[in-house]
Amino acid sequence: MYTIQELRDCIKAELDRQAYMEEPYSLFEPIKYMMEDGGKRLRPVLALMAYNLYGDDLSKVLKSAIGIEIFHNYTLLHDDVMDNAELRRGRLTVQKKWNNNVAILSGDAAAITAYKYIETVEDPYLRQVINYFNTMAMDICKGQQYDMEFETQDDVTEEEYIHMIYLKTAVLIGGSIRHGALIAGAPKHEHDALYDFGCHLGLMFQLQDDYLDVYGDTAEFGKKIGGDILCNKKTYLLIKAQELASGEDKALLHDWMQRKDYDPAEKIRAVTEIYNCAGVPEAVQEKIEYYVEKSRAALDKVEVPEERKVYFREIIDAIGDRKK
Amino acid sequence: MYTIQELRDCIKAELDRQAYMEEPYSLFEPIKYMMEDGGKRLRPVLALMAYNLYGDDLSKVLKSAIGIEIFHNYTLLHDDVMDNAELRRGRLTVQKKWNNNVAILSGDAAAITAYKYIETVEDPYLRQVINYFNTMAMDICKGQQYDMEFETQDDVTEEEYIHMIYLKTAVLIGGSIRHGALIAGAPKHEHDALYDFGCHLGLMFQLQDDYLDVYGDTAEFGKKIGGDILCNKKTYLLIKAQELASGEDKALLHDWMQRKDYDPAEKIRAVTEIYNCAGVPEAVQEKIEYYVEKSRAALDKVEVPEERKVYFREIIDAIGDRKK
Repeated sequence: MYTIQELRDCIKAELDRQAYMEEPYSLFEPIKYMMEDGGKRLRPVLALMAYNLYGDDLSKVLKSAIGIEIFHNYTLLHDDVMDNAELRRGRLTVQKKWNNNVAILSGDAAAITAYKYIETVEDPYLRQVINYFNTMAMDICKGQQYDMEFETQDDVTEEEYIHMIYLKTAVLIGGSIRHGALIAGAPKHEHDALYDFGCHLGLMFQLQDDYLDVYGDTAEFGKKIGGDILCNKKTYLLIKAQELASGEDKALLHDWMQRKDYDPAEKIRAVTEIYNCAGVPEAVQEKIEYYVEKSRAALDKVEVPEERKVYFREIIDAIGDRKK
Repeated sequence: MYTIQELRDCIKAELDRQAYMEEPYSLFEPIKYMMEDGGKRLRPVLALMAYNLYGDDLSKVLKSAIGIEIFHNYTLLHDDVMDNAELRRGRLTVQKKWNNNVAILSGDAAAITAYKYIETVEDPYLRQVINYFNTMAMDICKGQQYDMEFETQDDVTEEEYIHMIYLKTAVLIGGSIRHGALIAGAPKHEHDALYDFGCHLGLMFQLQDDYLDVYGDTAEFGKKIGGDILCNKKTYLLIKAQELASGEDKALLHDWMQRKDYDPAEKIRAVTEIYNCAGVPEAVQEKIEYYVEKSRAALDKVEVPEERKVYFREIIDAIGDRKK
């Protein structure tokens, strides 16, 4: 059984080969740039871990796992265009370093590159892999569509929000894990359970992200605190606050969201205070705990020796308890 | 054997079902809008015609042929964003009717929709179909990249230009035809020949397009004449003129391309005159004739009864001789 670090090294080595680079290089340079600083490589690591629950020959999963990572980066590339984002992981976004057209077209090329990596799976799994991949890819598009629509929608419910982050974020985590298990020959009820497990992880991850944006420690979290509050982002926290706050606080929150001129630190302080009074941090942690339990229950359904699941158990704890 | 009109009706009926429409409809409405007025449906018709060289059960090719048409529309959707185009087939482009973000994301959804249609092919062909499709999709991206780069490149050679239109336009025509033949069970040397045949058709089609933009009849061609000249588009005509014109005319052509203030009709008249003196129209027709011969030779390699090929022969003549 491989350690997470060994799996990460294996992914790094394959990514460093840059097997996707072809002429015209100008089309692929932005993809390379995007892939260079990819952080934790969470999705391909999870795919390899899931494969490793059942099998040890990583060569059978490596390329398609890279395909998932490239697909993830393609979605980020186009999201950055749509958000007109300046920075991604502390570096200029592709459309700022080059321009919008480069980001659109290189994004398109990245999506097709992802499909080229995905098609490397073995014959018995190809149809099922492609089918799940297409469904997942479309779910992510739908999630992005809801996310953009929520920007101008004032009555987003908790249920709608969870559905949106499920589509936009969770299915790719679930899909990565299912993918690894599927092509290792796992039976359907087990890769279904692993998919659910991964989706719960993804939801936990996003809810923690929302939480840390307000309650995190800048040094540990690595992002400025309160960014979501300043741009009135419809996060789980804001939606819960709109639901739970007292009438007076609700009006105050609404007022802060309408103001054009304000001191940023003051807005963050005031909105955080409203969140605190409404019991929002407790509500988020409760929701996270709910998905922690759901993810454990899903993992229990996977019938491999318990010692094989140890890293997955650790990941539940790490995400449930993360600070960065 | 089906007539072209029967095949077109069959495609129309499937497109009218709009089986791709799902929630959130806002994501798919622009795809529906784009697909509504699709003109001749050349690519899926060619796929069905190629299938019909070998088989008659169109239900086996229809969905994936629609996938090709959707993919074609996806490329147009994103191209229109990159070109900031106002109109497409006489209607507002998606980014003008909605906005850029809608066009980017609905384009992405269209690409994934295309893949969902493509995956419907039968088991024995799935890997080969996906592999050819991915290669073709990437070729189209590369073609678009070269096309954009040529806009600011003054020394585009004839060879580079042909390579660009081969990637951007021809491989999708070739790929559509190969696809139909492949999933009808055609042997490799025959679907290879049909691919070459289709690529030659595609090159002819694009060269005729360049030609008609200058020498067409507005009423018949349906577009304003001289548009390419006004925007200094690097067409086959311009590249040949730069190669063939006398020193004096070459300087004059260069001068026209630099001018900012001019009477459009005068520029079109002057540049057309330079083309005429340099023998450009003859050079284009010669090149088209060259691909007419190549396409005939490729079609000759396809070992089906000659009466089955009759529509393909007619298409060669129609494109070689088209006025619109």
